[in-house]
Amino acid sequence: MRETMSPENKSVSLHDAVKLLLEADDIYLLCHQYPDGDTLGSAAALYLGLRQKGKRVSIRCGDPIPQKYDYMFEGIEFPDFEPQFICAVDIADPQLLGQRLSPYAQRVDLCIDHHGSNTKYARQYVIRPEAASTTEIMYDLLFTMEAEITSQIADCIYTGITTDTGCFRYTNATSRTYIVAAHMMDKGADAAMINRVMFDTKSRARLEIERRVLDTMSFYFGGKCAVAYVTREMVRQSGANDEDMDGIAALPRQVEGVEIGVTMREKEDGSFKISVRTGPKVNASKICAEFGGGGHPGAAGCVLTGGVTGAKHQILSAVQKVFEKQENS
Amino acid sequence: MRETMSPENKSVSLHDAVKLLLEADDIYLLCHQYPDGDTLGSAAALYLGLRQKGKRVSIRCGDPIPQKYDYMFEGIEFPDFEPQFICAVDIADPQLLGQRLSPYAQRVDLCIDHHGSNTKYARQYVIRPEAASTTEIMYDLLFTMEAEITSQIADCIYTGITTDTGCFRYTNATSRTYIVAAHMMDKGADAAMINRVMFDTKSRARLEIERRVLDTMSFYFGGKCAVAYVTREMVRQSGANDEDMDGIAALPRQVEGVEIGVTMREKEDGSFKISVRTGPKVNASKICAEFGGGGHPGAAGCVLTGGVTGAKHQILSAVQKVFEKQENS
Ligand SMILES: [Mn+2]
Ligand SMILES: [Mn+2]
Repeated sequence: MRETMSPENKSVSLHDAVKLLLEADDIYLLCHQYPDGDTLGSAAALYLGLRQKGKRVSIRCGDPIPQKYDYMFEGIEFPDFEPQFICAVDIADPQLLGQRLSPYAQRVDLCIDHHGSNTKYARQYVIRPEAASTTEIMYDLLFTMEAEITSQIADCIYTGITTDTGCFRYTNATSRTYIVAAHMMDKGADAAMINRVMFDTKSRARLEIERRVLDTMSFYFGGKCAVAYVTREMVRQSGANDEDMDGIAALPRQVEGVEIGVTMREKEDGSFKISVRTGPKVNASKICAEFGGGGHPGAAGCVLTGGVTGAKHQILSAVQKVFEKQENS
Repeated sequence: MRETMSPENKSVSLHDAVKLLLEADDIYLLCHQYPDGDTLGSAAALYLGLRQKGKRVSIRCGDPIPQKYDYMFEGIEFPDFEPQFICAVDIADPQLLGQRLSPYAQRVDLCIDHHGSNTKYARQYVIRPEAASTTEIMYDLLFTMEAEITSQIADCIYTGITTDTGCFRYTNATSRTYIVAAHMMDKGADAAMINRVMFDTKSRARLEIERRVLDTMSFYFGGKCAVAYVTREMVRQSGANDEDMDGIAALPRQVEGVEIGVTMREKEDGSFKISVRTGPKVNASKICAEFGGGGHPGAAGCVLTGGVTGAKHQILSAVQKVFEKQENS
């Protein structure tokens, strides 16, 4: 159930947000489901800052925290208490709290976020779309709060920055993002370790599945379209889990000249989950809409049946139409 | 032929280096063979700065400049003249000039470099091992020279930083590296484009060679060491050029648990160029020094003979010693 913006909800300054937090106690910090480096880094950094101020705080997330983020949570506890104040971090909409945290959806006192799409569901909110990550805002907030930036907090803030900018690869990283990162380096952030863990480390199973997926990759339309697939058997053979499959859908589009990258992943029922990634000239969402799917202009999905051959045939027909239209325009 | 340090060679301040450059004219800027983003970015940035000062300058490189660096060379010309002053950038040793530029090996007037292993072959030199890239030094040099940092120069300096830090992933990136990057963002560097071109795009040939290299990867010492190799035949089959081979050496170390990643690349004469990449606990340079090679603590190289089997055997013996020492300490 989407909460509509109530008339008394309002934007507050960082200074007022800090005041609210310092006047409160028994604080819950909410993370979004399928937690990423930014929601977790923001929550952990704020937790550590509020603990310095003697507050009782707990971090709440509807999903388990992936192990790779352990370094941010050293010494952090997750006590259960009745919250007097609820702060959501990096959460654009209460729906993203997920089932388990949905009881808090209507009760968020403060939201700190950088999504321009934020639905302003919280009683008070600090929304800064110009920030590359919520941790970039958290840096200012902790500074305003006069918290000491420990090396652990530095790791948390750096983590949100690097994960939300794809290791500084997306256009959202500004000069200020680099300045905050520089300050976090000075405060002891272990950037090399963090980036290695987040971006450079492949499990053996991931390596195995990647080898196999690359072997299936074929090219069409003069190399403008690449299609790869993953069967359940390939996943089984490589020992890959869901985390290992993360980002596999990006592989075909990474090849030079590819404007439409397609990855087909066999589901339990034998149908194929199709992921389409496109360059600036092609709308992935439109291609997938033809098969009842959808998504963003650059990344969309749908489901097709008919085995590898049948599914590939259908998607290639849709791709062909796109290129024909391109030529005619 | 390795030039030994002559007694009159000396370290100079940036200020003196700038003075030398501004007093000179008809300047050659030398890049190392198999040019990378740092040697090219340094040369292009310095070229543009010196052109602002009205100097006749030319960039010289023993190998062709890969197309992906084109954005740094817009408007840059490569005139042929008899140089009155020769400046080497990012070149640790005159051997790295390659055959074509070897006539200049004994005549380098100034060297700007960040390699701690620099053999101090130039008459005067600025060597700063604490800099993540030579372009990080070039930033200071251009500042000292009072050159205007155009967006093209910003792209050049950012490029050296990001390529030499593996997109901020290596331990050589310091808070100062981020500060310089921030400044380059302010000056108009297109970081998102640069990082996409450098790190996210693979040629078809690159994909082919990567498939093959991944297939050769084997693991040793309980998965703490991974070794992959590339033969000339594999390169031929995949159609890969030197540019396509860039970063191949990083693949073995990317597998979870690997502390020492080794890539062996067959050279024309059948010997193998060994690249060793290590985690924080292991000094790659020491391993390679055993075979007459060298480099940085995290990335070093040497040459071995004896075919795939012989070369692998030798390097694994050296790796074994490292792990034995680790256990005993
Ligand atoms: Mn975020
Ligand atoms: Mn360099």
